Amino acid sequence: MTISRADCAALDADDPLKHLRDEFVLPDETIYLVGNSLGAMPVAASAATARVVTEEWGRQLVGGWNSAGWFDLPLTTGDRLAPMIGAGPGQVAVGDTTSIAIVKAVSAAMRLRPGRRVVVSDLANFPTDRYVVEGLVKAVGGYEVRDLGVLDEVLADDVACVLMSEVDYRTGERHDTAAVTARVQAAGALMIWDLCHSAGAYRVDVSQADFAVGCTYKYLNAGPGAPAFVYAHPRHHAEAEQMLTGWHGHAAPFAFEPGYRPAEGIRRFTVGTPHVLSFAPLNASLDIWERVDLDQVRAKSVALTSLFIELVEKLCAPYGLEVVTPRDPERRGSQVSLRHPDGYPVMRALIDRGVHGDFRAPDILRFGFAPLYIRYVDVYDAAAILAEVLDKEHWRDERYQQRLAVT
Amino acid sequence: MTISRADCAALDADDPLKHLRDEFVLPDETIYLVGNSLGAMPVAASAATARVVTEEWGRQLVGGWNSAGWFDLPLTTGDRLAPMIGAGPGQVAVGDTTSIAIVKAVSAAMRLRPGRRVVVSDLANFPTDRYVVEGLVKAVGGYEVRDLGVLDEVLADDVACVLMSEVDYRTGERHDTAAVTARVQAAGALMIWDLCHSAGAYRVDVSQADFAVGCTYKYLNAGPGAPAFVYAHPRHHAEAEQMLTGWHGHAAPFAFEPGYRPAEGIRRFTVGTPHVLSFAPLNASLDIWERVDLDQVRAKSVALTSLFIELVEKLCAPYGLEVVTPRDPERRGSQVSLRHPDGYPVMRALIDRGVHGDFRAPDILRFGFAPLYIRYVDVYDAAAILAEVLDKEHWRDERYQQRLAVT
Repeated sequence: MTISRADCAALDADDPLKHLRDEFVLPDETIYLVGNSLGAMPVAASAATARVVTEEWGRQLVGGWNSAGWFDLPLTTGDRLAPMIGAGPGQVAVGDTTSIAIVKAVSAAMRLRPGRRVVVSDLANFPTDRYVVEGLVKAVGGYEVRDLGVLDEVLADDVACVLMSEVDYRTGERHDTAAVTARVQAAGALMIWDLCHSAGAYRVDVSQADFAVGCTYKYLNAGPGAPAFVYAHPRHHAEAEQMLTGWHGHAAPFAFEPGYRPAEGIRRFTVGTPHVLSFAPLNASLDIWERVDLDQVRAKSVALTSLFIELVEKLCAPYGLEVVTPRDPERRGSQVSLRHPDGYPVMRALIDRGVHGDFRAPDILRFGFAPLYIRYVDVYDAAAILAEVLDKEHWRDERYQQRLAVT
Repeated sequence: MTISRADCAALDADDPLKHLRDEFVLPDETIYLVGNSLGAMPVAASAATARVVTEEWGRQLVGGWNSAGWFDLPLTTGDRLAPMIGAGPGQVAVGDTTSIAIVKAVSAAMRLRPGRRVVVSDLANFPTDRYVVEGLVKAVGGYEVRDLGVLDEVLADDVACVLMSEVDYRTGERHDTAAVTARVQAAGALMIWDLCHSAGAYRVDVSQADFAVGCTYKYLNAGPGAPAFVYAHPRHHAEAEQMLTGWHGHAAPFAFEPGYRPAEGIRRFTVGTPHVLSFAPLNASLDIWERVDLDQVRAKSVALTSLFIELVEKLCAPYGLEVVTPRDPERRGSQVSLRHPDGYPVMRALIDRGVHGDFRAPDILRFGFAPLYIRYVDVYDAAAILAEVLDKEHWRDERYQQRLAVT
């Protein structure tokens, strides 16, 4: 028995989160399944940003550092974000980019495990995770980056820390953070999680991890280039020394002391002047998240991704499409990845028909299902249009074959 | 013969830049002499930011990385900013914070002078410059930070690079960049300039320097936490390896290669995903700068600061105020610093009367004169109100004595 579009419409009518779709700007004629890359814009983001520009900067000018709370934005915003990842107040600092956040976390971990000279990085990590670790290790010298193969084999007593992504950006596979963290820590190493593809997709829990990093422009809907975050477990706050020692992480930034003295707590993970404007949409987005039940988010995410997998297997079976994401809902995030040898032109043909996913080399089609604004009928239509593109071989059209500069 | 307020009004009437004041939002009843800390808001910044939020993010969503040019923002914006500092196209990358930009420049310089193990940092640098160098050197190991005392004495053959601010953030003193650069380079070291207090104040020329960094939220009027910039001389583009090797600096960021391969040219100085929203006011501000004659800016800056010094010396002579900034216009930026033992309450009393400068411990009162929007009558009024605050000892009022958390 195949589920029908009418069945999907009925599921939407019963969806306890259905009212949230109206809080996002979604273009007409588009099924936006790229919320795992750049989340849709909260309607409130526009007014929130305008307020910071015209009322705060425009009227309060330099006084805004006090009167508008700019100086503390990295920490006040971090406290609001913390419950999304299982952290408490004073444990998350928002700012910079994920790449920079990784440098903070890994450099702090290296310093906390001085005898150990190996940083383990998952080959399945998003490339920037590996690139920045490579640059850091090269600069520091005397360290080695080891690829994560089989976890228990790699965990020798020379490992300082392990950097892994909770959800694989390509396959959508989700790792068991509690189990992995426990094994890494049992081996004497520190565990650092990259939450880029999980924060905002469901209730993340890194409360046992040593450090975590992530971005806010995917499921957290905070806009292009929105600030990243870094979490540090309180047991490390007193000792952690991350290497990017800018003045905002100083114990007394306005005392203009000659030497660096790290601030207490998570503030020592801040660096330079925060990008004030870029915090506005994030806080507008967190206004929504504070009203959302994360268990309902997860239930809907599982339902959407399960439905998509089911429909793809039913409708697209004859066309050489492989479902890469694990079938077990516990083992996936809120993304479904499919493999097709001509993935690139297939995705372009899909986008031309209003179904927006993205492509990751060499052959992965990714579809993200942001539970706050994606409907069951969207899932149905996306699978049906995908089947049509494959059945009619639309993707063979030459205009889909040519590579764009950025995909 | 003392200049009168009417004389100042006449100077304003003849000011070739007077029309620019209308392009900025300036609060009523305020003389804003803190443009050297946070520049005033260009009127156009509001619409520019709204357009990026609602039209680019809201409508183009993830497609904005191509269609709205987000991906290239660090370089396209850098090319627009380049003429302000004497650089050419392809030599400036915008993004991150000044603190992070310093890590890029200094780590690249260290790698380019591998045998030399000393980083010279001016004690007069803004503290973050020293803090981040301290953190970098500590992480890398085997290096030493040496304070800049007398330049010719410090320039031994173990010096890899020298980091100096073109304009001293406290005293407003301006250094001779050409002469200092030549001496540093003659000693085999690399010269890195911090332009935070000079870019946008006059025509900067770092074309002979090796690297330069700066912020855009002071005289460049790009808003609180606007992105910083880094300049690298083309002779270093092929060899420079800065240590923050994020994916945006990769030769092929969307190929998702396992290892880091730096991009050609200045792009290798970019790191993570650019803070797209924070670029909007900067580009709105550069629209203004592209219509401005920098020689007129400098001429007005010299006139404003000279007038302020003259008036302060005339009106405030009896009150123990010392002019810290050099009298020679060639040796100062666009800021005048005064010293007073009770500088903190004096500044608070001034602000209470609508004259906004700022205070830097232990005893410096700073007044920035942004030539795009400060008038001669503002200078007159500021000096007159300062004289009154001192004459009537308004600053002794107890409400001005108590310290604020952030000053």
